[in-house]
Amino acid sequence: MPRPIPAEWMARALELARRGLYTTDPNPRVGCVLVKKGRVVSEGWHERAGEPHAEVHALRAAGEAARGATAYVTLEPCSHHGRTGPCAVALIEAGVKKVVVAMADPNPRVAGNGIAMLREAGIEVEVGLLEQEARAINPGFIQRMTQGRPFVRLKMAMSLDGRTAMRSGESQWITGPHARGEVQRLRARSSAVMTGVESVIFDNSRLTVRADQLGLANAEAVAERQPLRVVVDTRLRLPLAAACLREPGRTLVATVSGCDADKRRGLEAAGAEVLALPPWEDGRVDLAALLRHLAAHEQANEVLLETGATLAGAMLDAALVDEMQLFVAPTLLGGEARPLFALPGLERMAQQRPLEILDIRAIGRDWRITARPEPALATR
Amino acid sequence: MPRPIPAEWMARALELARRGLYTTDPNPRVGCVLVKKGRVVSEGWHERAGEPHAEVHALRAAGEAARGATAYVTLEPCSHHGRTGPCAVALIEAGVKKVVVAMADPNPRVAGNGIAMLREAGIEVEVGLLEQEARAINPGFIQRMTQGRPFVRLKMAMSLDGRTAMRSGESQWITGPHARGEVQRLRARSSAVMTGVESVIFDNSRLTVRADQLGLANAEAVAERQPLRVVVDTRLRLPLAAACLREPGRTLVATVSGCDADKRRGLEAAGAEVLALPPWEDGRVDLAALLRHLAAHEQANEVLLETGATLAGAMLDAALVDEMQLFVAPTLLGGEARPLFALPGLERMAQQRPLEILDIRAIGRDWRITARPEPALATR
Repeated sequence: MPRPIPAEWMARALELARRGLYTTDPNPRVGCVLVKKGRVVSEGWHERAGEPHAEVHALRAAGEAARGATAYVTLEPCSHHGRTGPCAVALIEAGVKKVVVAMADPNPRVAGNGIAMLREAGIEVEVGLLEQEARAINPGFIQRMTQGRPFVRLKMAMSLDGRTAMRSGESQWITGPHARGEVQRLRARSSAVMTGVESVIFDNSRLTVRADQLGLANAEAVAERQPLRVVVDTRLRLPLAAACLREPGRTLVATVSGCDADKRRGLEAAGAEVLALPPWEDGRVDLAALLRHLAAHEQANEVLLETGATLAGAMLDAALVDEMQLFVAPTLLGGEARPLFALPGLERMAQQRPLEILDIRAIGRDWRITARPEPALATR
Repeated sequence: MPRPIPAEWMARALELARRGLYTTDPNPRVGCVLVKKGRVVSEGWHERAGEPHAEVHALRAAGEAARGATAYVTLEPCSHHGRTGPCAVALIEAGVKKVVVAMADPNPRVAGNGIAMLREAGIEVEVGLLEQEARAINPGFIQRMTQGRPFVRLKMAMSLDGRTAMRSGESQWITGPHARGEVQRLRARSSAVMTGVESVIFDNSRLTVRADQLGLANAEAVAERQPLRVVVDTRLRLPLAAACLREPGRTLVATVSGCDADKRRGLEAAGAEVLALPPWEDGRVDLAALLRHLAAHEQANEVLLETGATLAGAMLDAALVDEMQLFVAPTLLGGEARPLFALPGLERMAQQRPLEILDIRAIGRDWRITARPEPALATR
């Protein structure tokens, strides 16, 4: 059998990092492998915020055997003092010989500090092995650190003719159980689930992660953390009896300053938190400001947008959608049914919104199309 | 190298049959391989109506070497007297030892006759090897012979949100050149191209096969045969200046009995043929009767339906669509753009039209979804 090459050790570290996909929030997913003489000495990954980092797990498991080993880490080791001290110091103290890092810390204020600490201690450091794969694990964390806003993933369930519901609003169920399980996992990896008040009024959806629908071995542990529910609601129309207000976890109603004080108090009494932002120029909620708030005050990395044509279209027009996951059911709902996107003002072919399709695959009897908007003129 | 097995010889015969995909109309595509002592003696395929059948080509190429050979034929050899006499007789006279047939003749009036002739002459006959693959080559011929109507393939070009044109009707071009080349080849394999008069009024499309867009080695020969253009036009609104009336090949305007005689004469003078059928109960063209006419009087095997939401929806509602090829462009046109299907009366999820998706693949920058309606209640 050929001897594994460094990329394979890093691939293993990435695999370990992915084990934290549903639990590390708001921290990044990180994996670490210690290798000596062509063999794995120990492995570690970050499992949950407040618990040790990947490197610390691996070093503890290795004990004395860490001395002289090479560490493969998917993210630059931290240089700041958390609960267990900086990981860079831990690696130095354990006597590792070399550290291979997939990507530098995306936070521009600390990027390179951990690497510099290691190099100052005489440890050889390589950066960039499988960097693209490492970046793909933490799109939200990277975007929050570099741009101050979360990575927004738009999920929609549609018929083959691009319809999300009947004219009446009836939509249960367009897609099958496999697709709905996928959506549960999309929620579980997200810091927040965002929707428009119309969707809540129509579907009364709970917007929660349900352990029994996750299809994950650690489903119970995953469902302990409920993503923040964000309802965009300019006129505070959210019904006080909305199901999402009675679920575990928090519901944040995003509205505009100057909103009705009585309605606000009512919603707060019903369990919602209300965030009033200065309105956008159309008088409605300033979506870009809302996302900046979620990044700055809620440490939101990935936001799952589950909503109807109006808010989906507005987010798209504001260039705030980073990825789309369209679950396409093999069915037709006809020309009277509800559209995927309202894109007001789109009248000519020259104004069409080009996308890049990244992946199409079968999910049970449905198909999932992963796409992203092509860089276009941002309107805000 | 392992010795080829019978299925491989038949697969080769199917490959030969496919060479006639664009030229045999209205005849079926047929291939033939003569094999002796594990080696190919000769090959043949039917190239063009009026020219010899596959078996005759293979027997001529083999000469004396045909004696004692096994013939692999994708369709039951004919038993009727055409220009070169029945193929079954030719195989008998050439002294072949055995005949392997992928599928019996689908025409119920002659099915089995050729096989019986061979067996009566003492030739061993096997039927059914790669039958499914053989049937897939001639869906239209089989449907015409067994049901008296052509195989209808609906082609549509749409955005990812299920839109075929802007509200204004503007639609050029949603899909890219690769997809348009595919559509040219779909036309070229069809006996007829069918559309609604609205589509002709909007797009003034020529509905022709263009040699320079086919991307085929034998493009010039293929484009010599233009599929019959069929315009569904209840009120004879087809403009006398329509581009399709000035192209090589025939244009058949399907209308209802009692149509305006002056308009009819005008269209005929402009080069169209007019077919008036008793109207369907909604007063419009009886689509099922039109298809029966095309099978009976035009020997139409495959019909390509290229049209807008109204006729596409009506054909679907009448259970007259056998296959859909949806070319999906990675773009969004928004909720005001034109829908894929008008399906009047579809108001509840329970009435949705389920499809079976057979294939999804990339065609240049676009995607092609091949689907078929799930068997549903036919409304006519």
